[in-house]
Amino acid sequence: MNNIRLKSMLEEFYKEDIGDGDLSSESIFTEGEKGTFHLIAKEAGIFCGRKIIELAFPLLGDEAEVEVYAEDGDSVKEGELIAKVTGGMRTLLQGERVVLNLIQRMSGIATTVNRAVRKVEGSGVRICDTRKTTPGLRMLEKYAVRTGGGYNHRFGLYDAVMLKDNHISFAGSITSAVKKARKQCGHTVKIEVEIESENGLIEAVESGADIIMFDNCTPQEIKGWIHHVPSHIITEASGGITEDNVREYAQSGVHYISLGYLTHSIKSLDISARVLAEEGDL
Amino acid sequence: MNNIRLKSMLEEFYKEDIGDGDLSSESIFTEGEKGTFHLIAKEAGIFCGRKIIELAFPLLGDEAEVEVYAEDGDSVKEGELIAKVTGGMRTLLQGERVVLNLIQRMSGIATTVNRAVRKVEGSGVRICDTRKTTPGLRMLEKYAVRTGGGYNHRFGLYDAVMLKDNHISFAGSITSAVKKARKQCGHTVKIEVEIESENGLIEAVESGADIIMFDNCTPQEIKGWIHHVPSHIITEASGGITEDNVREYAQSGVHYISLGYLTHSIKSLDISARVLAEEGDL
Amino acid sequence: MNNIRLKSMLEEFYKEDIGDGDLSSESIFTEGEKGTFHLIAKEAGIFCGRKIIELAFPLLGDEAEVEVYAEDGDSVKEGELIAKVTGGMRTLLQGERVVLNLIQRMSGIATTVNRAVRKVEGSGVRICDTRKTTPGLRMLEKYAVRTGGGYNHRFGLYDAVMLKDNHISFAGSITSAVKKARKQCGHTVKIEVEIESENGLIEAVESGADIIMFDNCTPQEIKGWIHHVPSHIITEASGGITEDNVREYAQSGVHYISLGYLTHSIKSLDISARVLAEEGDL
Amino acid sequence: MNNIRLKSMLEEFYKEDIGDGDLSSESIFTEGEKGTFHLIAKEAGIFCGRKIIELAFPLLGDEAEVEVYAEDGDSVKEGELIAKVTGGMRTLLQGERVVLNLIQRMSGIATTVNRAVRKVEGSGVRICDTRKTTPGLRMLEKYAVRTGGGYNHRFGLYDAVMLKDNHISFAGSITSAVKKARKQCGHTVKIEVEIESENGLIEAVESGADIIMFDNCTPQEIKGWIHHVPSHIITEASGGITEDNVREYAQSGVHYISLGYLTHSIKSLDISARVLAEEGDL
Amino acid sequence: MNNIRLKSMLEEFYKEDIGDGDLSSESIFTEGEKGTFHLIAKEAGIFCGRKIIELAFPLLGDEAEVEVYAEDGDSVKEGELIAKVTGGMRTLLQGERVVLNLIQRMSGIATTVNRAVRKVEGSGVRICDTRKTTPGLRMLEKYAVRTGGGYNHRFGLYDAVMLKDNHISFAGSITSAVKKARKQCGHTVKIEVEIESENGLIEAVESGADIIMFDNCTPQEIKGWIHHVPSHIITEASGGITEDNVREYAQSGVHYISLGYLTHSIKSLDISARVLAEEGDL
Amino acid sequence: MNNIRLKSMLEEFYKEDIGDGDLSSESIFTEGEKGTFHLIAKEAGIFCGRKIIELAFPLLGDEAEVEVYAEDGDSVKEGELIAKVTGGMRTLLQGERVVLNLIQRMSGIATTVNRAVRKVEGSGVRICDTRKTTPGLRMLEKYAVRTGGGYNHRFGLYDAVMLKDNHISFAGSITSAVKKARKQCGHTVKIEVEIESENGLIEAVESGADIIMFDNCTPQEIKGWIHHVPSHIITEASGGITEDNVREYAQSGVHYISLGYLTHSIKSLDISARVLAEEGDL
Repeated sequence: MNNIRLKSMLEEFYKEDIGDGDLSSESIFTEGEKGTFHLIAKEAGIFCGRKIIELAFPLLGDEAEVEVYAEDGDSVKEGELIAKVTGGMRTLLQGERVVLNLIQRMSGIATTVNRAVRKVEGSGVRICDTRKTTPGLRMLEKYAVRTGGGYNHRFGLYDAVMLKDNHISFAGSITSAVKKARKQCGHTVKIEVEIESENGLIEAVESGADIIMFDNCTPQEIKGWIHHVPSHIITEASGGITEDNVREYAQSGVHYISLGYLTHSIKSLDISARVLAEEGDL
Repeated sequence: MNNIRLKSMLEEFYKEDIGDGDLSSESIFTEGEKGTFHLIAKEAGIFCGRKIIELAFPLLGDEAEVEVYAEDGDSVKEGELIAKVTGGMRTLLQGERVVLNLIQRMSGIATTVNRAVRKVEGSGVRICDTRKTTPGLRMLEKYAVRTGGGYNHRFGLYDAVMLKDNHISFAGSITSAVKKARKQCGHTVKIEVEIESENGLIEAVESGADIIMFDNCTPQEIKGWIHHVPSHIITEASGGITEDNVREYAQSGVHYISLGYLTHSIKSLDISARVLAEEGDL
Repeated sequence: MNNIRLKSMLEEFYKEDIGDGDLSSESIFTEGEKGTFHLIAKEAGIFCGRKIIELAFPLLGDEAEVEVYAEDGDSVKEGELIAKVTGGMRTLLQGERVVLNLIQRMSGIATTVNRAVRKVEGSGVRICDTRKTTPGLRMLEKYAVRTGGGYNHRFGLYDAVMLKDNHISFAGSITSAVKKARKQCGHTVKIEVEIESENGLIEAVESGADIIMFDNCTPQEIKGWIHHVPSHIITEASGGITEDNVREYAQSGVHYISLGYLTHSIKSLDISARVLAEEGDL
Repeated sequence: MNNIRLKSMLEEFYKEDIGDGDLSSESIFTEGEKGTFHLIAKEAGIFCGRKIIELAFPLLGDEAEVEVYAEDGDSVKEGELIAKVTGGMRTLLQGERVVLNLIQRMSGIATTVNRAVRKVEGSGVRICDTRKTTPGLRMLEKYAVRTGGGYNHRFGLYDAVMLKDNHISFAGSITSAVKKARKQCGHTVKIEVEIESENGLIEAVESGADIIMFDNCTPQEIKGWIHHVPSHIITEASGGITEDNVREYAQSGVHYISLGYLTHSIKSLDISARVLAEEGDL
Repeated sequence: MNNIRLKSMLEEFYKEDIGDGDLSSESIFTEGEKGTFHLIAKEAGIFCGRKIIELAFPLLGDEAEVEVYAEDGDSVKEGELIAKVTGGMRTLLQGERVVLNLIQRMSGIATTVNRAVRKVEGSGVRICDTRKTTPGLRMLEKYAVRTGGGYNHRFGLYDAVMLKDNHISFAGSITSAVKKARKQCGHTVKIEVEIESENGLIEAVESGADIIMFDNCTPQEIKGWIHHVPSHIITEASGGITEDNVREYAQSGVHYISLGYLTHSIKSLDISARVLAEEGDL
Repeated sequence: MNNIRLKSMLEEFYKEDIGDGDLSSESIFTEGEKGTFHLIAKEAGIFCGRKIIELAFPLLGDEAEVEVYAEDGDSVKEGELIAKVTGGMRTLLQGERVVLNLIQRMSGIATTVNRAVRKVEGSGVRICDTRKTTPGLRMLEKYAVRTGGGYNHRFGLYDAVMLKDNHISFAGSITSAVKKARKQCGHTVKIEVEIESENGLIEAVESGADIIMFDNCTPQEIKGWIHHVPSHIITEASGGITEDNVREYAQSGVHYISLGYLTHSIKSLDISARVLAEEGDL
């Protein structure tokens, strides 16, 4: 996580939500009124977003004091108090929605990931994400995946090579595609090849790929073919894998299973905020 | 929709995904290789995101030619061709993921909204959204809600007053909270009051609220109380409403039903891209 | 007011004024020299800009200590001490001009607004602004209008509908323009219609407009026609109204009078700064 | 003028005014409706802002075609057509207000400057501005000053040294302040000294100042003292100078007269827009 | 290379250089005067920066037509014409300095890299860069390294793990540091370990590091120890390597040699611009 | 120096280097681990960059405590401790590289400048820089030049007029070019003319130029011609001047010598960082 980037993001998000001001709280509260803000889990799940809460409120008001009781990755129960913030009522009411929108989404991802991780428990297989993240939130969503016990696939087009059918068919063959990539890229870059057939797999192994992805293969196909892969090459299954069949894939022999739905189709974790004005002034 | 803002957003999203470059396509393709990009619906739903496709690719390469065959709001069928783009292979491959991530999410929202709209068909009730949107994407998600046949609630803290329990209890009463807000705000601003009881409703009506929200009330409660509301005041039901009970709420007499899940817990619509290198150069 | 946005604005304004450095103060003072900065009203008026002073100097130097003696909206007298800042001489001298340029303008607006407000005293009419603000400063100028006792019209194209002659003539009639807008917009959005004739007024009332603006009508015309408007519709007069005739308009029966000159043609309030080096170091 | 910077500014200004969209024009017009936009002077004055019009509309819609009939600096008459733009109705209606707000202000400044310039006609004296500009608009306001026939004083703290009483008293004397500045600054930087007395003037001359500013001196004082200034030193009068006494100052022997009101207290030039929908589509 | 990012960078660089305007060319040329710009190598070297030239001038003036005669990576000779741009004189003169500053630096890097590459010719060893790049220019400097025939080490802290003495000593051992990193990071991330002794090397090999860096080792040490490294682990030498001893290191058996001076201490390639006004107008 | 701008720059630089996170330190250290960071000169030179160190680490972690022992401009010896920072290990390791890259470059410039300054010692001649700076770093590089004892030439196109051959030939003559510039520019702007011949020099003097630059003239030519220049005009030599011949130029009679290599072709000063984890937690 990059805190400088996180602060910039929070500033943008608050500009989006607050605009030129908060008509409601500016009508009712003066700058001096103090309150408390409680964040409470309304359903069980994996919490994620501590840093969001810690950084967000102080951006809005210097006086905000933040206590977060849950660590990222903790299981929270329905009704559990996650955090408490004291500060000006305006600060609390302006801060609320962006914080909730982020941590509900991040906790929803962590919870979803964790469910998949538990499905494959004991298999030694790692669950990982994809680039199917919400534009603008990749850093936070990939963090939530790690928080839930998952792993990150590449962050973008810039940190690993992924050779798909269009690269391969243009290059002429897997072999020549891998060769071209190896010629361009330095030693810190891994080259992953997507394969869809046993022949493809064999060629990918021989071409020197670092990672081989079984793209839309059945668990049976993977099991039948995986003996071609030497131990120093990492394998990954991807495409059409759901909570229902993930365990079957986990037993096919691959090291990683990547799941797009972890970031593009999750249910937010239900977390609610309670804001109360307090006796006394700031 | 603000196109200047949309362009800035797309630029940020591509900086996130491409970073310092696309290792894969820069290894395989030169700047001159040309290709075509097809966007195809993989399941039925409501399409949303025409402008995204039209603006995104030309940002990456001047040569891109974009044809979008579906209008925002169209029902698309599984297998339907949504758009075709021709341009440099690098442009197409770099442009793909951000476009997909956005239009899948927007179409997922439009489809979800449309399902709710059809549930309440004939009731005259309007389905609307909330501020529970993905930070940074509110403009696009609220647009998707409209595309699906829904309506937008306020965009942020800046364009309408919403008086909740904490405002009311601090102000002393609904009456005094509405009075304070009216004293602060001009004539283009509407004041909405959340109520949870029949007495609250009666006071809200008398206080001169423009909109009254039945917060976490049952359809029965609403039906029983709504006769207190004169015809020029707009009513809204919110809290705990799902696809399953939305029709019941629609028959309670309210004008609007706001649903948080429309933007925070949807499944993306499955849309896939096919990118193929073509004969000949740019 | 959105403090996160205000800080960003101040940072931009200081980048504009300081550029790569302050040649004068960096030549004469070291970082350690301390001083005091006094802000003094040079003419009577309504002060506006407390938050500017409080946020600006600490951006330039952590050591700055700010005391502001006037509240926004206070009448200040010629010679009155408005604020005192202690800090490094460089901080004070670099901070001075942007602060003055902003608070002189904001206080000039508040003073001008207040003069108009006092002109219509007792009539119950509210003075409001327009979108004729200085690009980049709308948040601050609209705040200054409120500070002077006025009200804000819509902030931009995004928070209310305003149907003018070109909308109406294209839609075919006021009725169909209002209908189109009502079909597009949710319940938190008000629809205002500009009318120029009695027939227009009657149609606007029947169309269900929320606000009707008498555009460039005489007070006599307004008086003669206003009986058509039921009590739940808000009325506004606009166009060609000055300090001289504003009282006459205030007696025509409208609720709001909008005045463009409040933000586009005001005289800044004369406020001066005195900066003095002090004995001793920071 | 820096066009790259101007485009960025316009983009920010449109984000401020349009926000997430134009509720009115998006309700009434589709993307295809075409219209024309006429910009007409409603009073006589000096026009300024050609580049604004040329750059603004194309930012909002590629199809916009702009013709500007007046050059910056031209005298326009009441009723004169300044510019015509054809394009989408949405483009025109969204573009209107920011363009008007800018060119009315810039033309207002140019007109005000020009009036001062004509007051001192024949004297050889140059009218110049100050740093009392609207934060965020300095580039445009200083351009408007030049357009009106005036000259620019320094743009910010970074492009010239200005030694005022607090610099001088801290440094111990004019002589030592100039010496310190000369020691710090390169040969492209001019050093200006503010003086308030004849002795100050004499010391400033001897210290090697490049420019001497008579600060709040009467024309008589200036006339009486100016013989001390050798011909290669430039002189400037500043402080308390208005349209009424500027001619008197112009005859005192100084080269430049700087006037703060040129940018902080002007009346915008009245320019109006007429937008009409046209037959036919884009 | 990410063109969207490159355009943003160029815009920032021109804001830095042009500020509020180009005093010289705006004094002498009107917008209509046309000219040609020639870019000529003043010494032999490897050219790098084609994209800079192609994108920069059109940002400043739409009318600019750019022809670049050299490809990135081409050897240019003293006196060789690299590019020709025609356009407005203001565009050309404002565009000149930023373009020169960038391409001279990038070509200087490419030339320096190429010299190192040629020193190790035949050895099969690859020359690579470090993170010792100029802040803000990493994308361009790393591109220049590739242009010169070198390879890129990691781009930042985000795309590969590098375990140095402080990570290792805190973790307790190389083994436990690698284990911790492997537990955190997904399969696309490589783990590099810095070693300074034979024992360290042996432990790094056994710990499963992907890359081993010989940090400040002599060529003799490397030669003596490298037999411990199995063929699937990549090796790198770094620290104290110069043009003089790089060949010796290249014969030590490592795969990569990383050189900090390639980006932090190079001589710009001498390239000059000639700008001439032409007959006729734009 | 403008600290607000410096902070923005540092934030951008850290976004470049850290991206979405520091894979290495986040794998090994938790947020609580504390450490110390020592900055040590590895070779003798002039130190520059105190402000960088003071501002950078606190941006990354509030807990960072910074002590800088050297003042900008101090000569440091090999092995000298320049600064010490205590804070979280993550803060220190993430902060290290950007700080080093900046201060090594700035100290390298200061050291190079200082060497040139000492070469001309006693001559009274001032060494100055050019616009040949690294794009994006001009403020810092020009500061480093001052730190080394040099002077700044103009900062950009906006703060002084420089008339070169293309301006002059288009304007028709030096005289008319100077006249045009004088007509456009205010009194705080200096006009510099580049000359290449004795006749050019004579014309430049007569035209009223403020500064005359001998462009690519030999010391002999300058000596032979300089008697034409009256004492109030500043002279500068530029073009083809190196450390080897700078002294010769210094004796030619000019006031300033500008050297491009000071910012475009310097060797960074070798400074190293040592980061050690400490007992105990934050």
